[in-house]
Amino acid sequence: MAEEITESLESLLSRIHQALEENRPEEISAAIADLEPAEIALLLESLPLHERTLLWEQVPAELDGEVLLHVHDEVRSTLLQDMDPEEIVAATASLDTADLAELFDDLPKPVAEDMLRSMDELQRARLQETLSFEEDSAGRLMRTDTIAVRADVMLETVQRFLRWKASIPDNTDNLMVIDRTGQFMGVLPLARLVSHDQETLVETLMDTDVDAIQVDMKSRDVATLFQTHDLTSAPVVDKEGMLLGRVIIDDIVDVIQEISEQALMHMAGLDEEEDLFAPVVPSARRRAVWLGINLLTAFLAAWVIGRFEATLQQIVALAVLMPIVASMGGIAGSQTLTLTIRGLALGQISKTNSNWLLYKEIGISLINGVVWALVVAVLAVVWFGSVPIGAIIAAALVINMLAAGVCGIVIPLFLKRINIDPALSSSVILTTVTDVVGFMSFLGLATIFLL
Amino acid sequence: MAEEITESLESLLSRIHQALEENRPEEISAAIADLEPAEIALLLESLPLHERTLLWEQVPAELDGEVLLHVHDEVRSTLLQDMDPEEIVAATASLDTADLAELFDDLPKPVAEDMLRSMDELQRARLQETLSFEEDSAGRLMRTDTIAVRADVMLETVQRFLRWKASIPDNTDNLMVIDRTGQFMGVLPLARLVSHDQETLVETLMDTDVDAIQVDMKSRDVATLFQTHDLTSAPVVDKEGMLLGRVIIDDIVDVIQEISEQALMHMAGLDEEEDLFAPVVPSARRRAVWLGINLLTAFLAAWVIGRFEATLQQIVALAVLMPIVASMGGIAGSQTLTLTIRGLALGQISKTNSNWLLYKEIGISLINGVVWALVVAVLAVVWFGSVPIGAIIAAALVINMLAAGVCGIVIPLFLKRINIDPALSSSVILTTVTDVVGFMSFLGLATIFLL
Repeated sequence: MAEEITESLESLLSRIHQALEENRPEEISAAIADLEPAEIALLLESLPLHERTLLWEQVPAELDGEVLLHVHDEVRSTLLQDMDPEEIVAATASLDTADLAELFDDLPKPVAEDMLRSMDELQRARLQETLSFEEDSAGRLMRTDTIAVRADVMLETVQRFLRWKASIPDNTDNLMVIDRTGQFMGVLPLARLVSHDQETLVETLMDTDVDAIQVDMKSRDVATLFQTHDLTSAPVVDKEGMLLGRVIIDDIVDVIQEISEQALMHMAGLDEEEDLFAPVVPSARRRAVWLGINLLTAFLAAWVIGRFEATLQQIVALAVLMPIVASMGGIAGSQTLTLTIRGLALGQISKTNSNWLLYKEIGISLINGVVWALVVAVLAVVWFGSVPIGAIIAAALVINMLAAGVCGIVIPLFLKRINIDPALSSSVILTTVTDVVGFMSFLGLATIFLL
Repeated sequence: MAEEITESLESLLSRIHQALEENRPEEISAAIADLEPAEIALLLESLPLHERTLLWEQVPAELDGEVLLHVHDEVRSTLLQDMDPEEIVAATASLDTADLAELFDDLPKPVAEDMLRSMDELQRARLQETLSFEEDSAGRLMRTDTIAVRADVMLETVQRFLRWKASIPDNTDNLMVIDRTGQFMGVLPLARLVSHDQETLVETLMDTDVDAIQVDMKSRDVATLFQTHDLTSAPVVDKEGMLLGRVIIDDIVDVIQEISEQALMHMAGLDEEEDLFAPVVPSARRRAVWLGINLLTAFLAAWVIGRFEATLQQIVALAVLMPIVASMGGIAGSQTLTLTIRGLALGQISKTNSNWLLYKEIGISLINGVVWALVVAVLAVVWFGSVPIGAIIAAALVINMLAAGVCGIVIPLFLKRINIDPALSSSVILTTVTDVVGFMSFLGLATIFLL
């Protein structure tokens, strides 16, 4: 039963982790015997390098190819490192051309050449055609195992043809209808094929109101199309309308998952392909870049504070309170930013409605700015017994939260306009702004009015 | 062509926004005539309340039900507010039971009662059965429009039956095979039905190695099952194994999308159902909660700084440099945190491997802590001409980044253990820790060694 399958996945994880630690390989191979490639992939991702290698050795060779497809890019390279060229060629022999193309770029050069040599003419031509399409385009996603029929035959003929073929590719819900030249005409859903009279002609039954996908369409747009049109498969055509293959929902689910992982990971300056158990030194090196950028912005903020050393010297209470102004601005800004980044990802935001959004967020910032400014002012007055300090922190808070609200919209929209991923860089810029504006307004106002 | 469809969605958005601003309703209804419900839903989400109402009035009544299904919960309530009870009842009349159940809880009480009254006996019984399943369970996701056949008949009989029915529900890829009592036995893929000899018995062709889903299984687990097993549909059964319905991938794609939006939005203290154009006052009120919690933690940090007023009074350079320590800890911690939260969402992390993860992140924190501590120390020495200050900020930075790395793993794991959503609360707790540890270690060390 399925319920037990998922429940046991976590306990299976524990069992395998333990077996690995205690070095009992036979137990491991028994434990993974009934698993799907995607589940084995998950197990491999949940292990540090040494244990991952031990488990990988226990995975049956015939599953290697499928498992490699299901892991994140970075994990894949760790697995490929443990394989001989012959093993890799054998593992990938049974894969579909689209899957093979996905792996191909990750393969070591000599292995890739070996692989091309071991293929027959037709396979090689297909793979090279797939590789000629741009990454992240429909051409790379598409499967070429479509079944095409002609429009001018009867359903009976189609069924005879299918019975002669005896097997139909996985996930076939529609047959493709083409003309004499291979031009795409429409689809014949299997559901119609089985529910209509066998004398009917394909052309009278076929569905011509179909979203045919151009082979160079971006994967992201294909995913949107599948979601807005509730598709489970779609034909892929070239510029002349010739049928090239089909995209199926299985592959689209992966694209959707990847896009959403991207937004989450990019906001923390991480790559969505990052291996949870990447080795320490390279991980540290990659994260160092993000920390270095942040250090620059932190020094900028420190420099701003430094301009007001004389003020701080006289009123040390300012040093105590100033992180509050910066922090509230940062939080308010990150809320607006997250909403904007989700809106951009969902396609809710365009040039014409960004102004409405700006007005709304300015309104929210003003209300929350004023409300929390009052609270902070009262607490500051009680704490330090100085009404002027309360007034100044209140004013600085309103200014900073307003700046945060505006920047939470303007920064990601600007970055998108100049083709920089807004999820990746917005949060650093935003924090810089809220730190600088926060410290400058608070200490600046204090210098003007308190000294 | 599809390429044009998506490209035009953004320009369509602009066109409709303009038509709404200039009040040209006929242009709007022409523009949306060819759109899918999901696309209209996206348009509605991209508009402020007033314009949204204008567009909603132009949506053809027969699409209302489908459009309501495709918007986020919060947007849905704004749309329902503009409808008469009769309109709502009419809009929902054509919906599937599962879809109806999804809307039902959002309906105003009297409308819901009206709706129940307007249904026939069978519809009402079905809806009430669906509503009796827990929210976010397979029972709520499941569709009841399955086609079931008996195992002891020939394919020919099945095809005759299907032709007699004449239409097959959307997204039917498998027929369900049941016994005399309704017990689920297996599935007969349409692809097999059309590609095998018509004299074959269903029982010899059916696939019995199928993941049947228990009706009370959590939606999240159903989604994982679909992803790991590459399913496009799955039968749903009760505890006794009786067939109740089926879950299809269309609905699973929505679940996957929702789960990933959740992680992103929760990390900023927002709800994934939040309306991009929610009215200002309620939006401000909801965000105020998050800001209030953050204010508490900011005051805690300020209080820590306050303990060191005497120290700051004597060495004002400390006030200038202290935000750097807190900020670097915060960034390093949020990277570890994001990795952990994604790992939890993907099911990569369990009790047994969390220690490995902890060691790895401690390693990374130490390396980056030491590297950036040296950089900061040199800069601090150059800036303030004091080697002791450089040494102290370096030590504080290493301590804080280590604390950040440990907390980035321990906090979300602990929250998950006590059944609190780690994405929602981890980041506030983490920032509190990195602020408090950052200020305390830096100012504390300075008080001990510099005074």
